[in-house]
Amino acid sequence: MTTWATNAWYVAGWDAEIDSAPMARTICGVPMMFYRRLDRSVVAMRDACPHRLLPLSMGLREGDSIRCRYHGLKLGPEGTVEEMPLKNDAPNGRICVETYAVEERHRFVWVWVGDRDKADVALIPDLWPCSADGWTFDGGYYHIAADYRLAIDNLMDLTHETYVHAGSIGQAELMEADIACEVDGERVQLSRWMPGIDAPPFWRGALKKPGPVDRWQICQFLMPSIVMIDVGVAPQGAGASLERHDQGVRGMVIDAMTPESETSHHYYWGMARDFDIDDAGFTARFKAQQGGVFLQDKEVLEAQQSAILANPDLKLAAYRIDEGGVRARQIIARRIRQAEEAAQ
Amino acid sequence: MTTWATNAWYVAGWDAEIDSAPMARTICGVPMMFYRRLDRSVVAMRDACPHRLLPLSMGLREGDSIRCRYHGLKLGPEGTVEEMPLKNDAPNGRICVETYAVEERHRFVWVWVGDRDKADVALIPDLWPCSADGWTFDGGYYHIAADYRLAIDNLMDLTHETYVHAGSIGQAELMEADIACEVDGERVQLSRWMPGIDAPPFWRGALKKPGPVDRWQICQFLMPSIVMIDVGVAPQGAGASLERHDQGVRGMVIDAMTPESETSHHYYWGMARDFDIDDAGFTARFKAQQGGVFLQDKEVLEAQQSAILANPDLKLAAYRIDEGGVRARQIIARRIRQAEEAAQ
Amino acid sequence: MTTWATNAWYVAGWDAEIDSAPMARTICGVPMMFYRRLDRSVVAMRDACPHRLLPLSMGLREGDSIRCRYHGLKLGPEGTVEEMPLKNDAPNGRICVETYAVEERHRFVWVWVGDRDKADVALIPDLWPCSADGWTFDGGYYHIAADYRLAIDNLMDLTHETYVHAGSIGQAELMEADIACEVDGERVQLSRWMPGIDAPPFWRGALKKPGPVDRWQICQFLMPSIVMIDVGVAPQGAGASLERHDQGVRGMVIDAMTPESETSHHYYWGMARDFDIDDAGFTARFKAQQGGVFLQDKEVLEAQQSAILANPDLKLAAYRIDEGGVRARQIIARRIRQAEEAAQ
Repeated sequence: MTTWATNAWYVAGWDAEIDSAPMARTICGVPMMFYRRLDRSVVAMRDACPHRLLPLSMGLREGDSIRCRYHGLKLGPEGTVEEMPLKNDAPNGRICVETYAVEERHRFVWVWVGDRDKADVALIPDLWPCSADGWTFDGGYYHIAADYRLAIDNLMDLTHETYVHAGSIGQAELMEADIACEVDGERVQLSRWMPGIDAPPFWRGALKKPGPVDRWQICQFLMPSIVMIDVGVAPQGAGASLERHDQGVRGMVIDAMTPESETSHHYYWGMARDFDIDDAGFTARFKAQQGGVFLQDKEVLEAQQSAILANPDLKLAAYRIDEGGVRARQIIARRIRQAEEAAQ
Repeated sequence: MTTWATNAWYVAGWDAEIDSAPMARTICGVPMMFYRRLDRSVVAMRDACPHRLLPLSMGLREGDSIRCRYHGLKLGPEGTVEEMPLKNDAPNGRICVETYAVEERHRFVWVWVGDRDKADVALIPDLWPCSADGWTFDGGYYHIAADYRLAIDNLMDLTHETYVHAGSIGQAELMEADIACEVDGERVQLSRWMPGIDAPPFWRGALKKPGPVDRWQICQFLMPSIVMIDVGVAPQGAGASLERHDQGVRGMVIDAMTPESETSHHYYWGMARDFDIDDAGFTARFKAQQGGVFLQDKEVLEAQQSAILANPDLKLAAYRIDEGGVRARQIIARRIRQAEEAAQ
Repeated sequence: MTTWATNAWYVAGWDAEIDSAPMARTICGVPMMFYRRLDRSVVAMRDACPHRLLPLSMGLREGDSIRCRYHGLKLGPEGTVEEMPLKNDAPNGRICVETYAVEERHRFVWVWVGDRDKADVALIPDLWPCSADGWTFDGGYYHIAADYRLAIDNLMDLTHETYVHAGSIGQAELMEADIACEVDGERVQLSRWMPGIDAPPFWRGALKKPGPVDRWQICQFLMPSIVMIDVGVAPQGAGASLERHDQGVRGMVIDAMTPESETSHHYYWGMARDFDIDDAGFTARFKAQQGGVFLQDKEVLEAQQSAILANPDLKLAAYRIDEGGVRARQIIARRIRQAEEAAQ
């Protein structure tokens, strides 16, 4: 029994992380490697030569193919053999390396984990703000030595900002607004609506207008392990609501957590926004600041994981604030259970 | 089956190690944390927030309480909840963190491992020289990657000084005096009496008198894992004996070994003495020297532990010189066996 | 079930590695230590004092004996007790440390792993070029974190040179000559004969003659884990053949892989040669170059071992070029199976 859902798309890397030289990354326990063909499309392969298992990420690119750096077995981007170690030997059609369905979308490269014939790009989580007109998006990557579900718990709850991010984004007023949790199929939404308040400096600067604002924070969990947080302000009276709020300035915090092992994951983070989108200086400053905030989460998540392992007699508890994470975990667990039942 | 006795007091730290900021230390396999209340009394708690298990030692002190740095759950020194993550939520009386009986005595903070209702401060090992009038006491701490019982073996035998501490405290004459081992309940005593000898330089300087001396070395094992070594000299003819020897100068080497895991322990070491007790320079020089000697033991004990793990087909042997350690281990094993029988 | 044959001689070290001070090395899972007697003969002992298991390699040499640095137990080179920790105690004849049959030959110290009464020096692999008149031999040592059989596979196949050693010894022409594999008892031979070719620069310089040459490469596997590679050139028409080829210049690449654990081994490498044998500068330059080449193998073998552990669902495949390694592994496996059947 794994801790992650299969038959799902996971982020394998930022678009800019993957280029013609192979990049190794273990996804859901499987060592994979990724590179781009000459036409820039992405190849995803098991990171082990079918001959002697040397990581193919150590190999040599030749056109769209990869040649193992041990004995020179040459494999095409579809995983089939193009040349044997002795060039005079005819390629053996039964030799192949596993490849994975892969798709580039919303500035990320996604890989399908599960039965390849079920890979449907329509199932890629809709991170529309990362690629929509009128929006800009940037962010970074951290390796986190903690179960990816601890990161989902973290992001689906907003109270931790006060303590983990004291001095940066934590604010007492965030603790006072009430929260609402809704589940819609495999989507969980945790929302907070703060009407008619004084905008904090960051949003005041973005809005570039005086006067009271309506402010929102809407955390959305999307299968298999995405959290998008819709944040922003609009002038009071402009008609913004939890459902529609394009009347002011808006950001979408993007968090994609891809399991590496039961106790570690890849964390892709960033923010898309619909204001000052051509201001590269703003983008760079904000990315640096956000990277600092998420480093605080990394510290906490890794300490939490260590404590879970060191206290095997204790269990995680769930309070009212944890409802978002609890619901997200229920959806993940249901998918895992269904996959196991289907496998029997 | 553990390798240590429960229902016993173990040293958790030097008095000066524990202050208002929490200190984390794993005792007998349990992650604990320690801090002082405003009145300087000591609190001992499981080092895991009952909410999401983040180490409470990462938390924030507020008065006598500790607030978890993740979601802000506030716990009082008795382990009960004082504030929920959302302050408007009423504290849930069923939420609590485990606390441990703790007592400060003889310059150490002691923690009770076992059934809390059996914690009786009268059972704290009587390290009287550490706190008696007319005596002074100082020492240090080492983490040792070895089963604590290997350290007891080490200290309950005096022949190792010749080889492990050659060049410092080892002396051939120590090998010549005969030794006697006595068991009295849960106390083991290994003694050596050297009457009418020439005092070695260290003791000659301490005694500040010429002439032959009677010299003694008396190792005492006290449950659950203390070794006190009574050492000193008195002028010959002054009436000193193994039983009573206050006629000269006397030191008590103090060794408290607290299990951390099956293969590591916390080592608190020092020397109490009844001479030159106001000479802070002597105290500092002696502590530095003793620290160097015990580093040699740390090196040997860790190499021994590694060799035990690397040679699983071999067993520790016990010769005549090992009687003190053998008796101490028998007492520990009897206690462990009794606890297991009581648990069935 | 181990991955190595027992009742066999393994290289424990270079002759120059072992001297009067003990050297620790784990051979086939057993911690051993080695030192020379005053007459320079070698002692091999379990690296654990029979008293408290402290590594004897930490001990003190006294004459031909070793004294444990913990309690001073003194053991003779035959493993028997010469002095107890208390010198007045009579040596206990039942106390002993395991010693191992050891033999110095061909510039290496060999140790017998298995039933000591079967140790027969006639079974030492015949690395004659390392000690024959008219030859010189030098080389080095690497620790490799990989199953020793991966190194045998590597050395019994010549195609890897093109990719692993591109830029140094790899040459496309090596890939064109056909190879022949023969098994003779427990010996495997993989040979390649290249008649009437232009000598590469290295061999041209060694031969010191113009004109076409016959060139050979003959890899020999010898139980339990030796690979010797006979390489060289002779003037065409001088009568050289695969069977006899002393008409030109000749080198023997020597590779001894001694298992340490299931996933690591000791690698002793070098080259013996029958030309320019008094040219110490050549010897030193060649050793440095060869050391660089074998570091490339170390990198590949360790990456391969990691990939084997990270991809437990995948198996090593064997192609035509792997025949040498496959045959060698079959011989090893047969010996292991026979030893297990004999043990039942």
